[in-house]
Amino acid sequence: MINFDYSKAEDFIKKQELDAEYISAKKAADDLQKGTGKGSDFIGWRDLPINYDKKEVERIKKEAKNIREKSQVLVVVGIGGSYLGTRMVIEALSGYFCKKELEVIYAGNSLSSDYLNDLLDYLKGKEFSVNIISKSGTTTEPAIAFRLIKKLMEEKYGKDEASKRIYVTTDKNKGALRELAIENGYETFVVPDDVGGRYSVLTAVGLFPIACAGFDIEKLMSGAAFARKNYDEAVLNYAAVRNVLYKKGNVIELFVNYEPKLSMLLEWLKQLFGESEGKEGKGIFPVGLTYTTDLHSMGQYVQEGRRMFFETGISIENSNRKLEIPKQKDDSDGLDYLEGRDLHEINKIAAKATAIAHIEGMVPNLEIQIDRLDEENLGELIYFFEKTCAVSGYINDINPFNQPGVESYKRNMFELLGKPGFEKEGN
Amino acid sequence: MINFDYSKAEDFIKKQELDAEYISAKKAADDLQKGTGKGSDFIGWRDLPINYDKKEVERIKKEAKNIREKSQVLVVVGIGGSYLGTRMVIEALSGYFCKKELEVIYAGNSLSSDYLNDLLDYLKGKEFSVNIISKSGTTTEPAIAFRLIKKLMEEKYGKDEASKRIYVTTDKNKGALRELAIENGYETFVVPDDVGGRYSVLTAVGLFPIACAGFDIEKLMSGAAFARKNYDEAVLNYAAVRNVLYKKGNVIELFVNYEPKLSMLLEWLKQLFGESEGKEGKGIFPVGLTYTTDLHSMGQYVQEGRRMFFETGISIENSNRKLEIPKQKDDSDGLDYLEGRDLHEINKIAAKATAIAHIEGMVPNLEIQIDRLDEENLGELIYFFEKTCAVSGYINDINPFNQPGVESYKRNMFELLGKPGFEKEGN
Repeated sequence: MINFDYSKAEDFIKKQELDAEYISAKKAADDLQKGTGKGSDFIGWRDLPINYDKKEVERIKKEAKNIREKSQVLVVVGIGGSYLGTRMVIEALSGYFCKKELEVIYAGNSLSSDYLNDLLDYLKGKEFSVNIISKSGTTTEPAIAFRLIKKLMEEKYGKDEASKRIYVTTDKNKGALRELAIENGYETFVVPDDVGGRYSVLTAVGLFPIACAGFDIEKLMSGAAFARKNYDEAVLNYAAVRNVLYKKGNVIELFVNYEPKLSMLLEWLKQLFGESEGKEGKGIFPVGLTYTTDLHSMGQYVQEGRRMFFETGISIENSNRKLEIPKQKDDSDGLDYLEGRDLHEINKIAAKATAIAHIEGMVPNLEIQIDRLDEENLGELIYFFEKTCAVSGYINDINPFNQPGVESYKRNMFELLGKPGFEKEGN
Repeated sequence: MINFDYSKAEDFIKKQELDAEYISAKKAADDLQKGTGKGSDFIGWRDLPINYDKKEVERIKKEAKNIREKSQVLVVVGIGGSYLGTRMVIEALSGYFCKKELEVIYAGNSLSSDYLNDLLDYLKGKEFSVNIISKSGTTTEPAIAFRLIKKLMEEKYGKDEASKRIYVTTDKNKGALRELAIENGYETFVVPDDVGGRYSVLTAVGLFPIACAGFDIEKLMSGAAFARKNYDEAVLNYAAVRNVLYKKGNVIELFVNYEPKLSMLLEWLKQLFGESEGKEGKGIFPVGLTYTTDLHSMGQYVQEGRRMFFETGISIENSNRKLEIPKQKDDSDGLDYLEGRDLHEINKIAAKATAIAHIEGMVPNLEIQIDRLDEENLGELIYFFEKTCAVSGYINDINPFNQPGVESYKRNMFELLGKPGFEKEGN
């Protein structure tokens, strides 16, 4: 169960401002519902929680079991939306230091030669499988990683066994990767045509590697379905409040949490909101902070620096395990007053104390509360944020589903690298 | 060798603006040199590279050797400046997947009970030592972690052996941790009085754990000494340019790099600049991005969103190892045009292409180039950034060495937790 609380932002906004923005949000949500908004050929994520391909999910579960039986490592090759959602869910649900039955490693998300060299060395001594995720198959970063890993795999296992260890998530009908998969008999899963990268975690893009890591993907989907059914009001309020705040000069949204393993959730949120809203010279700029650690780095700025942000906290009601502050003979550390108290309760009090401090520092505070870190709650969060993001985009009259600016560096890069078709004019 | 290049920002600033700001920077550097600026009781970092305690460094090296012989894990307990610099250096110098002789784990930098529970379980099966780093010994996060880890240690090893595995880095003369160390015979190292947390990586705070991880701390210091001697001009230029840009509305500095293991350098920079400059309602807001991965998440916003930033790239001339794009029979991935080329060269071209794209998007671009990732280059970078940060603070007429805003959440937290001396008035 998600609870969205904006009571600690109310002192910063007028009721009539919020009412007006709420009406815009309602209109935006209607456009999303009717498919009459911008980029509406990419709103397939909207009904996924209730109409996803059940047969594909059965196949995903079967192949995940297969991988867990024969591999120690799964390498997920993908960049941006092709790995951030996956990594967010797996890290949020995993323990911090536990030995995992199957280790999931991410590749193809940078051009670091040190990373790839070290990874190739590491894989030599492991039993491993690969899941390459790419709509086209020709995105530079994952394509380079896949070429190198496939080569290693074929040397290590032979072409035949390698083809049984390569899983491809790509376009349903077309593209280089689709063709390669057919030719070599790789198992394939589908990136739907109507779901963009940053909205794809609840498709096979995320579901397959998440299932491989041992988590219950149907519960993830049922959480999303619950959010789809029950959080219309919370979505409208969140979208309205953040846009009122934005229009009043709070141009940065600080997404904060108090659990270090949610740091990838922050990365996923940065892509979701930043790539959806940051266009046409506008958009709320998303920043992620993990407290209390970042209170000892960025806390000073948030408290007393230039005023230009609001803060959206994600708080977790229950930890996985209790941890009591133990008694100690001496009080050398000054902690006696905390003896017998549960650390998670102290963490929640730190969150409350921080919100109060930042409000005093003129930072409006929003809070999104969840029960605990499990598949259902994460499914709810994912859908809640996705829908809020789409509605917010429509409020600002932009297309929240495209990313035209991402092409600029690629075009320059292809030109500088001399890629056929991208030669500099006049050369 | 560091090279600071601001040629790709020159189109955004007028020569007379830069000349005027350079004069301010020169004045600020003079104040720093003479000790006549704000907070000048905390400028001990300035001459550390040439006057650091050589005897302590010998003791650090001896004890580091000792730890490496008898432990598999070193737990570094500290928050903010007590661990960020350490972690930044160790991660930058380590391989990505290599099995380490000594694993360094960080604790006491959050209030997560899941993290600490999982860590305590993990440590039960390992031979481990602890380095607690705290000026006072009573900062809540590290104090809680240390109380729990010390308890585990004394149960596992007995009080006597535990006292040989606990290393304390704290105030030279006073404080609870100092007293505890004397009472129990713990080995101690010194946090100098005149060096603040975020400037402390080149004191025992950073040097001891970095030496434990197997790196050459004297080379780190000689790099810093080289920077101290040779980069006055680069520091003045960087400080001047970033402040001209700031005054023209570029209120966010995007620190970017292209090597994932530098992500902790970005965290260290966020603390250094954010905590130093973010006060009195002003300051450049620091953001860290690791490209090319973040080009596929935040790249859209940087290219086309609200215009309010400039970008400072940290680029590395040479990778540790070459990695050639191999030949492949088919061109299914469209990469044939890259065959035989070194991946790091491609990464550098991506950086160049990104700078061009972002300049077209009206994002002024600064570049800091280093030769390679090693102790000397990191030592140079550390000193270069520390001095630039101090000079920038003086340009803006603030004290770059205090952090009054960090107390706000702590005071509220102590009050809510009922800490003696912090009871709510009227209760």
